[in-house]
Amino acid sequence: MEFTAQQIADFLGGEIEGNPLVKVSSFSKIEEGKPGTLSFLSNPKYSQFIYDSLASIILVNKNFNPEKEISATLIRVDDAYQSLAVLLSLVEQTKPQKTGISELAFIASTAKIGENAYIAPFVYIGENVTIGDNIKIHAQCSIEDGVSVGDNVRLYSGVKIYNDCVIGNNCTFHSGSVIGSDGFGFAPTEDGSYKKIPQMGNVIVEDNVEIGANSIVDRATLGSTIIRKGVKIDNLVQIAHNVEVGSNTVIAAQTGISGSTKLGKQCILAGQVGVAGHLNIADGTIFGAQTGVPNSVKLPNQTLQGYPAIPIMTFHKAAIVHKNLPELQKMIYAMQKKIEELENKISSISE
Amino acid sequence: MEFTAQQIADFLGGEIEGNPLVKVSSFSKIEEGKPGTLSFLSNPKYSQFIYDSLASIILVNKNFNPEKEISATLIRVDDAYQSLAVLLSLVEQTKPQKTGISELAFIASTAKIGENAYIAPFVYIGENVTIGDNIKIHAQCSIEDGVSVGDNVRLYSGVKIYNDCVIGNNCTFHSGSVIGSDGFGFAPTEDGSYKKIPQMGNVIVEDNVEIGANSIVDRATLGSTIIRKGVKIDNLVQIAHNVEVGSNTVIAAQTGISGSTKLGKQCILAGQVGVAGHLNIADGTIFGAQTGVPNSVKLPNQTLQGYPAIPIMTFHKAAIVHKNLPELQKMIYAMQKKIEELENKISSISE
Amino acid sequence: MEFTAQQIADFLGGEIEGNPLVKVSSFSKIEEGKPGTLSFLSNPKYSQFIYDSLASIILVNKNFNPEKEISATLIRVDDAYQSLAVLLSLVEQTKPQKTGISELAFIASTAKIGENAYIAPFVYIGENVTIGDNIKIHAQCSIEDGVSVGDNVRLYSGVKIYNDCVIGNNCTFHSGSVIGSDGFGFAPTEDGSYKKIPQMGNVIVEDNVEIGANSIVDRATLGSTIIRKGVKIDNLVQIAHNVEVGSNTVIAAQTGISGSTKLGKQCILAGQVGVAGHLNIADGTIFGAQTGVPNSVKLPNQTLQGYPAIPIMTFHKAAIVHKNLPELQKMIYAMQKKIEELENKISSISE
Repeated sequence: MEFTAQQIADFLGGEIEGNPLVKVSSFSKIEEGKPGTLSFLSNPKYSQFIYDSLASIILVNKNFNPEKEISATLIRVDDAYQSLAVLLSLVEQTKPQKTGISELAFIASTAKIGENAYIAPFVYIGENVTIGDNIKIHAQCSIEDGVSVGDNVRLYSGVKIYNDCVIGNNCTFHSGSVIGSDGFGFAPTEDGSYKKIPQMGNVIVEDNVEIGANSIVDRATLGSTIIRKGVKIDNLVQIAHNVEVGSNTVIAAQTGISGSTKLGKQCILAGQVGVAGHLNIADGTIFGAQTGVPNSVKLPNQTLQGYPAIPIMTFHKAAIVHKNLPELQKMIYAMQKKIEELENKISSISE
Repeated sequence: MEFTAQQIADFLGGEIEGNPLVKVSSFSKIEEGKPGTLSFLSNPKYSQFIYDSLASIILVNKNFNPEKEISATLIRVDDAYQSLAVLLSLVEQTKPQKTGISELAFIASTAKIGENAYIAPFVYIGENVTIGDNIKIHAQCSIEDGVSVGDNVRLYSGVKIYNDCVIGNNCTFHSGSVIGSDGFGFAPTEDGSYKKIPQMGNVIVEDNVEIGANSIVDRATLGSTIIRKGVKIDNLVQIAHNVEVGSNTVIAAQTGISGSTKLGKQCILAGQVGVAGHLNIADGTIFGAQTGVPNSVKLPNQTLQGYPAIPIMTFHKAAIVHKNLPELQKMIYAMQKKIEELENKISSISE
Repeated sequence: MEFTAQQIADFLGGEIEGNPLVKVSSFSKIEEGKPGTLSFLSNPKYSQFIYDSLASIILVNKNFNPEKEISATLIRVDDAYQSLAVLLSLVEQTKPQKTGISELAFIASTAKIGENAYIAPFVYIGENVTIGDNIKIHAQCSIEDGVSVGDNVRLYSGVKIYNDCVIGNNCTFHSGSVIGSDGFGFAPTEDGSYKKIPQMGNVIVEDNVEIGANSIVDRATLGSTIIRKGVKIDNLVQIAHNVEVGSNTVIAAQTGISGSTKLGKQCILAGQVGVAGHLNIADGTIFGAQTGVPNSVKLPNQTLQGYPAIPIMTFHKAAIVHKNLPELQKMIYAMQKKIEELENKISSISE
């Protein structure tokens, strides 16, 4: 299918700069733009590429201010990244979708599956599982007894959901993600060994949640580990037992949240962040990459980094001085010596 | 099933404070306590919740000293967390257990399976595998040729055990954990590429070991990677080739141990710790979260944190000063100027 | 099979020191050497073990200079580790290999499989998949529609490859690794929720790449995430969308590379390193363990560590001073007081 710049601009409510009749049939990255493709510029780091890009149409933000002539037709929109998302979603929806339940899947007789399901070979669905409409379950997923899953959920191959967990609508879980594994709870005993605390709770995942490949949400000891609506979790993330993640919070790859901690709403955790257990993190908190969080954060909307997490400007300023430490230490020792000399001189003068 | 406070106290050897006839039929978290449930207080952070908890019975430590009146019946025990573990284990044992070997599993003709097995659909068991009694293998696990597994082992869905590994009794491995994958061994060659060192060893896991979801224990190059009895490993942990983890050592999520390192007994590694290769870590060592360990630890029972790992009190004190570094640097420069001025003044006085 | 020291030395082009007729039939670690085995010494940390090792033959580097008598026969070679790799590879090649396509695998009718394939039970191969010769696919792997795989590739159990990815020749992927999962791309919207950016690109993995257990390479938003030839990736590594990893670069466990970053050739990333997005990292860069990389690295062949990454010598020197910070702060305060006293004294003298 081909679309003209005019058609796309009309659809997005954008303004055209250039030839409204130019046509595109696919997408490209701006630095690899080809004729007949639509590209976008959102991150200013990539502005340099717009002037030489061969893309026929480029989505830009309304306030984009070119420094040179651009050969492509521009479509100015409020938010180029979001408009791209809209276009890509449209294209994705036109793709053929798999349907049907494979005879090579195992579905317990007591399980209930909604309408319009795709269930691939080697999927295991246990007793008393309830699944809504339009489910897509790729190969080798396992959904154990008593799990409930909403409508429009997609589980990529190899997702594992332990018994009695509850999954909302419009969720997407990527390959190898594990929902409902045992929390890490062991009581020390007198002989030095550990006694397992059975993990009797479950996991509740609300609507519109995405969970990345090989990420894990452990079940609660008692009660529920809760992922609120709209949460987006990247790959290889660890969510421990009894954690609650507030709505629309975003967690990047390889971050870990320890047991019983509550993350507020609209937080952003960058990659490789670690948050200790039994903490409360205020709404809108942003943690920079590799931050370690040993204490609760009470004031909302702060941006913190480092171990222990401190305001990011303080962190950056301290980091700059940090590498001068050997030099500063030398100065301190030299000054101490100098002060002693001055003291001696003054003493001799005073005498 | 319902139990009275008296029955529970007798069973646990605890002392009742309040109504011994009150009955419970399930568990609750103290902050979400409901009538008819038993709760517990172990972590002092949660003491505030005991005064308003609606739980009918609350387990507390013997030395718990209430500040206000408590409506629930208390049962005082030596260790409330451990007593909870005992009760939860009891309840868990009464749950119906799956049994039987699915016709949808593949079991090689030379494999030997003990009595009372549960083997789910789509499990793969290779040639010459030996498995003890009371095994529970959930869907889509793979146990390759020559593996030996003891009694009372549970493998949750999607566990992968490579050929020739040896697993002891009473072990639990969670979904997606991988035992016996190749160690990361490559020899550099003259043209800049790397030549793989075949990993000919195996993994030995002793009794009573728990391994978390998506954690990995690599096989040895030669000999064995060894996980000693009673070790507890959380999710997303990396244990490299030829590592030995001492008995009853606990490793929290996202921690990594590099090749050929030996961890002592009864160590505790918090989350996101990294230990370099070819080191010896003394018994009873505790590493705080995100610690990096470039050197061996010879003195036992130390608590260390930071990169490089230093005694935790030193680490905390240094962290406090760290954030003042820009201020301290300013002071140093100002003092240096001041000292020069003083020198000049003294010179002029002396003249 | 048994081989004499003479036979092995001839094969490796090494020089014998000791009895050329001594025979070995297997391998051992130097610290666990047994008669009848061949061992090796490469890492000088293990030199102490060579004098008491019971191994019959020990491979050593040409320049190894013993301090005491050694009972084993030595074979001196240019690079003992590489020679070990050669011998282990030989032995490995003699092991019986599985072949044949299981009737319990699902292979779409439009998929094409080359000669001499091993495909285990419960493997899923989708529509229009193309696979070369000598493939080995262990149990429960999933290869989705439109994927292309080269010759001599091994996928251990539970590998998941999403649709339309391209895998070269001679690659090995370990259990639980995921290729082609969605990149983590979401556009913020005005109500605080996030809109998913469909990830329309793919992953290209070139020849001779090894990817460790439970590691992930996300597909590109547009275009391709690219892993160049000869790259070696350890376990639990995260490669985000649109990343490019240069040829022969080595990435150790639990490291993460954020979106759109380009790593150069012949880089070495130690464990738990994090690299931010949209960066360029020069050829030959080495990052020490737990390094955080917020900025591009332009100068090639540097060794960097810490957060933010700085030259490793600076990092080590600063770390040494870091733990003295409380002491240095005290000195600074004391000196400031002293300087004031001196000022006062001088004032009083001058008056």
